Amino acid sequence: MQKALDFYLQQRRKIVALNYVGFVISWDMETDAAENSIMADSEQVAVVSEMSYLLMTDPEFEKAVATLYDNKEQLDEVLRHEIEVAYTEVQNTKKIPQDEYTAYSELTSKAYPVYVKAKNENNFELFRPYLEKIVDYCRKQTKWLQTDDLKGYDVLLNQYEPHYTQAKYDRFFNALRERLVPFVKKVTEKPSKTPKWAKREFSVDKQKEFCEYLRDVMCFDKSRGIMKVSEHPFTSGFGTDDVRITNHYYPDKFDSSIFSCIHETGHALYEQQCDESLNGTLSGGGASLGMHESQSRFYENMIGRSRAFWEVHYTKLQEMFKEQLLKVSLDEFMEYINTVERSFIRTEADELTYPLHVMLRYEIEQKLIAGEIQVKDLPEYWNNKFEEYFGITPPNDTLGVLQDVHWSYGNFGYFPTYALGSAISAQLYHYMNKDFNVAESLKKGNTAQVNEWLKNRVHKYGSSKYPDEILQLATGEDFNPDYYIDYLIEKYTK
Amino acid sequence: MQKALDFYLQQRRKIVALNYVGFVISWDMETDAAENSIMADSEQVAVVSEMSYLLMTDPEFEKAVATLYDNKEQLDEVLRHEIEVAYTEVQNTKKIPQDEYTAYSELTSKAYPVYVKAKNENNFELFRPYLEKIVDYCRKQTKWLQTDDLKGYDVLLNQYEPHYTQAKYDRFFNALRERLVPFVKKVTEKPSKTPKWAKREFSVDKQKEFCEYLRDVMCFDKSRGIMKVSEHPFTSGFGTDDVRITNHYYPDKFDSSIFSCIHETGHALYEQQCDESLNGTLSGGGASLGMHESQSRFYENMIGRSRAFWEVHYTKLQEMFKEQLLKVSLDEFMEYINTVERSFIRTEADELTYPLHVMLRYEIEQKLIAGEIQVKDLPEYWNNKFEEYFGITPPNDTLGVLQDVHWSYGNFGYFPTYALGSAISAQLYHYMNKDFNVAESLKKGNTAQVNEWLKNRVHKYGSSKYPDEILQLATGEDFNPDYYIDYLIEKYTK
Repeated sequence: MQKALDFYLQQRRKIVALNYVGFVISWDMETDAAENSIMADSEQVAVVSEMSYLLMTDPEFEKAVATLYDNKEQLDEVLRHEIEVAYTEVQNTKKIPQDEYTAYSELTSKAYPVYVKAKNENNFELFRPYLEKIVDYCRKQTKWLQTDDLKGYDVLLNQYEPHYTQAKYDRFFNALRERLVPFVKKVTEKPSKTPKWAKREFSVDKQKEFCEYLRDVMCFDKSRGIMKVSEHPFTSGFGTDDVRITNHYYPDKFDSSIFSCIHETGHALYEQQCDESLNGTLSGGGASLGMHESQSRFYENMIGRSRAFWEVHYTKLQEMFKEQLLKVSLDEFMEYINTVERSFIRTEADELTYPLHVMLRYEIEQKLIAGEIQVKDLPEYWNNKFEEYFGITPPNDTLGVLQDVHWSYGNFGYFPTYALGSAISAQLYHYMNKDFNVAESLKKGNTAQVNEWLKNRVHKYGSSKYPDEILQLATGEDFNPDYYIDYLIEKYTK
Repeated sequence: MQKALDFYLQQRRKIVALNYVGFVISWDMETDAAENSIMADSEQVAVVSEMSYLLMTDPEFEKAVATLYDNKEQLDEVLRHEIEVAYTEVQNTKKIPQDEYTAYSELTSKAYPVYVKAKNENNFELFRPYLEKIVDYCRKQTKWLQTDDLKGYDVLLNQYEPHYTQAKYDRFFNALRERLVPFVKKVTEKPSKTPKWAKREFSVDKQKEFCEYLRDVMCFDKSRGIMKVSEHPFTSGFGTDDVRITNHYYPDKFDSSIFSCIHETGHALYEQQCDESLNGTLSGGGASLGMHESQSRFYENMIGRSRAFWEVHYTKLQEMFKEQLLKVSLDEFMEYINTVERSFIRTEADELTYPLHVMLRYEIEQKLIAGEIQVKDLPEYWNNKFEEYFGITPPNDTLGVLQDVHWSYGNFGYFPTYALGSAISAQLYHYMNKDFNVAESLKKGNTAQVNEWLKNRVHKYGSSKYPDEILQLATGEDFNPDYYIDYLIEKYTK
């Protein structure tokens, strides 16, 4: 047992270091490396991944994990959870036939550029044969990895959000379908119009300056992380002491950088506020994709789109953009940043319509994996369902079934976490408001009290517990989608 | 033999990948990572270094290298050289007592912050005990690593510039002392004065734009490398396809970024123009420090400070900085960028006085390692010698013996390569002009012909040959310092 523990800790030290390496390399590729350098460097990345893989699949490591798993009652709570997760991963890896896995890795790396081409050329048929093989593999995966508790699509869902199965998601999406679809149709009946002032040119330098101001408002510790520019905003972290975000600035869409900054800083706070004792372990970072998204959405929507927030900070924004905003009242500004409308693209959707985009994907994935629909039927199925939920039909597949990259990577089961995150944020918001008046707390000019609550209820645990356990600890309740739907209907009824 | 070769190639693949990792990590730390992130990440860096070290010192790897070394006649030329170098390194590593090496690593990592403090506080005594131990270790090192051919200071010199011994350097520095010292004294008798226009504010954004123009003039392939900002300009490369430079922009010292850009792009071209077949081996990159510096200095001085170059590009610069330069003639500009003066700091010295700064350090290192002077005598010795060579005395140690960081790292034997690089650049310039008229070639608006010559004579070899071999191949002659001194005296007599 002690020998197994020593070996585990020694190997973990290397695994963690290679995680850091992966973090730095992908940061570099996303934000610095020149186009042709990326191609050349990818050979080295492959070797590094291989080194990582060899550490994780080292038979001695497997043995150590198994020994620790068998004696897990003797481990402290954090390590016990880490070993449980590691054990499951090791077992799952062994269940997948090596040749199938290799062939699949090749398939997805080839599928990506084809997908990009298909999307750009609005040619689903180009991508179809690849997607068929990917779905085929995912179906086989559900067989290889199934357990007494998890079968079919549940196996895939569980990879992205442990313990969230179709039973839980169905309740959520059924509620959305019943209550939100008719509500959204009503609210979005009249097409919205972007006001002229919002389309004016806002200096990129000043946008950056305002985002730096926002990061201070959100109490992001700038000595432990930077903000940079990339094509698509993202957050990337290693431990609590190196947490980075990127942003993108559009001169004619000033609010894009503001809400990306708030969203990404929400992710970043989750990482920065983990308990420091988790650094150097495999139990740091966020508990799951959904939990991570719940934090970014919380700050973006509950805080960043709230009147209480802008009552404090709108003057600053107005001062920085006098020419554009001097004659725009807080009311007009609030209306603009909370506009809802029917649109085709998930990533550009507003707070209210967003979950319906996800619901559509969930239904499709469920049916695809169950074999109830086939890949060749996707474009038609997508468009019909879209018409049903949104009242509009995508004019082409680029704006329809081809818009997201996820399926080309084989990420089936991933999408639902996006909507789950928003729903969890509403549940947290409900309970936070029981402890203190959130709107009132924002009058202090920063989000310190909000941060503190989230730190103690969610962030500090890192990934040392399952996301459903954390939600239970934070709110005293299981996941309950009603808070979310109530929140949306109340907000957009006003 | 075949087994040894297979193992070597397999291990090299990993070593090269970890070299890439080191390249990305240090780039990240120099240009992105936040202050406290660097501290936290350094733990991971230590683990990665350890992984690298374990690959290099793996007994099976040592055995493979030894087998290949014994059969080196069967290897192709490039691999033979690589194995010779690897074999020497492996043997040298084994000659250093492990406990001494560990203690020394700790010593130098502690010495650095003390050095910084000593320099900032002008307090040599603070640094003295550390430097004494460092010198002590370097003296021991010369004993451990000595061979029939290399003894004393030569052992250290050889670590930075293979095959360059005191015999070669003495001839060089003696010539400098005899011919250049009196010449410099005469030329720098009258103090120079920076013209008013050169002290005006030059927009940083426009400086950047002009540097991008210069990189195009120098035919740097921007699809395979970027330029970024850092505190001190540097070049960092991995293979031919990922070569990066940094620059620093001072609003009131516009020429600083221009010559840093030309200098670093010189280094970068050396890396970009290596033979592609050397990618993925340990024979890419520059042949030595001196050889690398010869390329950067070549572009900076022979090209970048030449009238022929600015006859083509000065109009562009003038157009970009109309307000500051419209009334400044090409003659005035040329005079300004070739100003020479007596100064205390090596890194800020001009082309003419620079080698004398290096000469001073060479003499001191030689005497220190030989035990002819002691660390405690350094400040006085430095100041006396400085007065002798430059006709001025440093007012304090911060501007004297404490100005350079190298000794705190234990880098004895490094300095001479700086002057060697300049001298080699003059030798290459001499022979290049025999093949074509360099000044004339610049009229085409770019440095393509210069690049091509250097590629075929120097760059393509990477580090697959020793630097003296490459110089011999490039010029048909051994290192000859006369070209350099002739060049300087001719240029600055005008």
